[in-house]
Amino acid sequence: MPELRKDPITGRWVIISSERAKRPHDFAKVAVKRKGGLCPLCPGNERMTPQEVFAVRGDGSSPNQPGWKIRVVPNKFPALMIEGDQGKGAEGIYDRMNGIGAHEVILETPDHDKDMFDFDIKDVGNVIIAYRQRVVDLKQDARFKYVLIFKNHGQEAGASLEHSHSQLIALPIVPKRVSEEMVGGYNYFRFRDRCVYCDIVDQELSGKERMVDENADFVSVAPYAPRFPFETWIVPKEHRAIFESINDGEISSFAEILLLTLRRLNDVLSNPPFNYVIHASPFNVGEVEHYHWHLEIIPKLTKIAGFEFGSGFYINPTPPEEAARYLRESSS
Amino acid sequence: MPELRKDPITGRWVIISSERAKRPHDFAKVAVKRKGGLCPLCPGNERMTPQEVFAVRGDGSSPNQPGWKIRVVPNKFPALMIEGDQGKGAEGIYDRMNGIGAHEVILETPDHDKDMFDFDIKDVGNVIIAYRQRVVDLKQDARFKYVLIFKNHGQEAGASLEHSHSQLIALPIVPKRVSEEMVGGYNYFRFRDRCVYCDIVDQELSGKERMVDENADFVSVAPYAPRFPFETWIVPKEHRAIFESINDGEISSFAEILLLTLRRLNDVLSNPPFNYVIHASPFNVGEVEHYHWHLEIIPKLTKIAGFEFGSGFYINPTPPEEAARYLRESSS
Repeated sequence: MPELRKDPITGRWVIISSERAKRPHDFAKVAVKRKGGLCPLCPGNERMTPQEVFAVRGDGSSPNQPGWKIRVVPNKFPALMIEGDQGKGAEGIYDRMNGIGAHEVILETPDHDKDMFDFDIKDVGNVIIAYRQRVVDLKQDARFKYVLIFKNHGQEAGASLEHSHSQLIALPIVPKRVSEEMVGGYNYFRFRDRCVYCDIVDQELSGKERMVDENADFVSVAPYAPRFPFETWIVPKEHRAIFESINDGEISSFAEILLLTLRRLNDVLSNPPFNYVIHASPFNVGEVEHYHWHLEIIPKLTKIAGFEFGSGFYINPTPPEEAARYLRESSS
Repeated sequence: MPELRKDPITGRWVIISSERAKRPHDFAKVAVKRKGGLCPLCPGNERMTPQEVFAVRGDGSSPNQPGWKIRVVPNKFPALMIEGDQGKGAEGIYDRMNGIGAHEVILETPDHDKDMFDFDIKDVGNVIIAYRQRVVDLKQDARFKYVLIFKNHGQEAGASLEHSHSQLIALPIVPKRVSEEMVGGYNYFRFRDRCVYCDIVDQELSGKERMVDENADFVSVAPYAPRFPFETWIVPKEHRAIFESINDGEISSFAEILLLTLRRLNDVLSNPPFNYVIHASPFNVGEVEHYHWHLEIIPKLTKIAGFEFGSGFYINPTPPEEAARYLRESSS
């Protein structure tokens, strides 16, 4: 019998269709492949990108020259423009504003051939340091309410360059999914006087069947009502709404669990295309009791039947308990 | 300058990225192709599907035999099971229920080689009659709150069979997008004492730049804040929350505008993969002032960058005014 499960944060029901249960090898054909060619993100090609806004350089090398470990540059084809005012206004019943914002690319490694799961913990930690630094910096711009940090791995997941990178978009609005989670978290808090994510962490730590990994500061879990096969969340154990308050020790734990989780996904699903997105409290909300930052990893294993967009109703052929078991039992 | 636009119903902001503006020919490579092979939906193969639950037969032919114009059968691989009780329950903080529901396939034509845009108005009208009849029937089952009606055209849009068909899923819950629209519509109504969809119809009819087609009972429009290029909605001009109260005259108008809109999309985008989904008031809500049924067509032209799932934040490279103009100027 298939099951209908409700996401406790957003209220979304999903079908967990055990009759159609899919195992890892059913997804194997989607493995990310590299094609090569001239890479604008490689050391030596720094002139092919806009001037860097942040870098980690161990060797005292100069900005916009080789020698970097991490490099952050404005996107050459930005979805939003950094200059301008908000230009808020109405068009009849509709609301609009100018598309101002920052769109940056985080070059995660100088090594063209390394994927994030090939990194060591310190490399991943540097990526998180870059995320934090950029959020802290962009937050000073009063026009912005949110910085959306995400990674697309593989063409199927929307990556147009194969050199390992993440992106961020600073926005004058709050993305819909985060707003929904804020509202859902608020309603849950009003009802129970507890944070829904804290409750999830507690329940998963006591039940274990959806747990993937755990360390001092974080859990990696398959959510109870995942939209997608092998969807995995990394959640801080302690209550924290804001991402950028993460300290250096926590960055190290976060890097460790993120790396381990990506290695497990790579192990079980053979280099699947994936996306991850950090969800955190907006700047105009800050540190609140009812929200809890986290990272969501979504492997891109199935064609999304378009009705799922149109309806917001998802059919997931892989129960999260099975996905978590495969990941736990992987060799990583 | 790109623009941020807010969907007046759900509050979702999207980037309309005019700098990346895409024209129809940029999308041409995704055209749906047919591969042939044995088809379980073709006349003569009726034994390959479960027994029909509805059919339109002009010639007095027998059930589950050739001679049909429209045939509705249970899905052979249903996502939900028709037998069983709701089995509502908790798992700690989580909520679940049994995956009961109906999952049916609407065979839209006996002709394997016809796509819906090749139909005549009467053929499309028969499809709508089948939708209405199935909703009216399934609504009598007190376990169900909603019937989700959708069509996937082309493999890229999730269709696993190429013979023209739609699907419906009767659900004991309300799909998230519809709930969101209900809440958004309610808030709008409370604020303005008007239906947001009625306001959209009025504004689009007076402005015209996002209009695609219009007839006695319906408009076909590009929404102000579309998530996807060439997203198009068909909306009744008169206020109606419930779909299945559509009368025979309105079915004929609806078939006419749906066919014309699909032909225009086919003309401009050369047989694109697409999905459409009908959004209507749930059975436990019924005919209300703050909701308005409609059909959303989403051509599948771009790879959805995964961060769009993860964030609910969409970047659309085709302004709806341009999409609507292309569609209006098409030869259909």
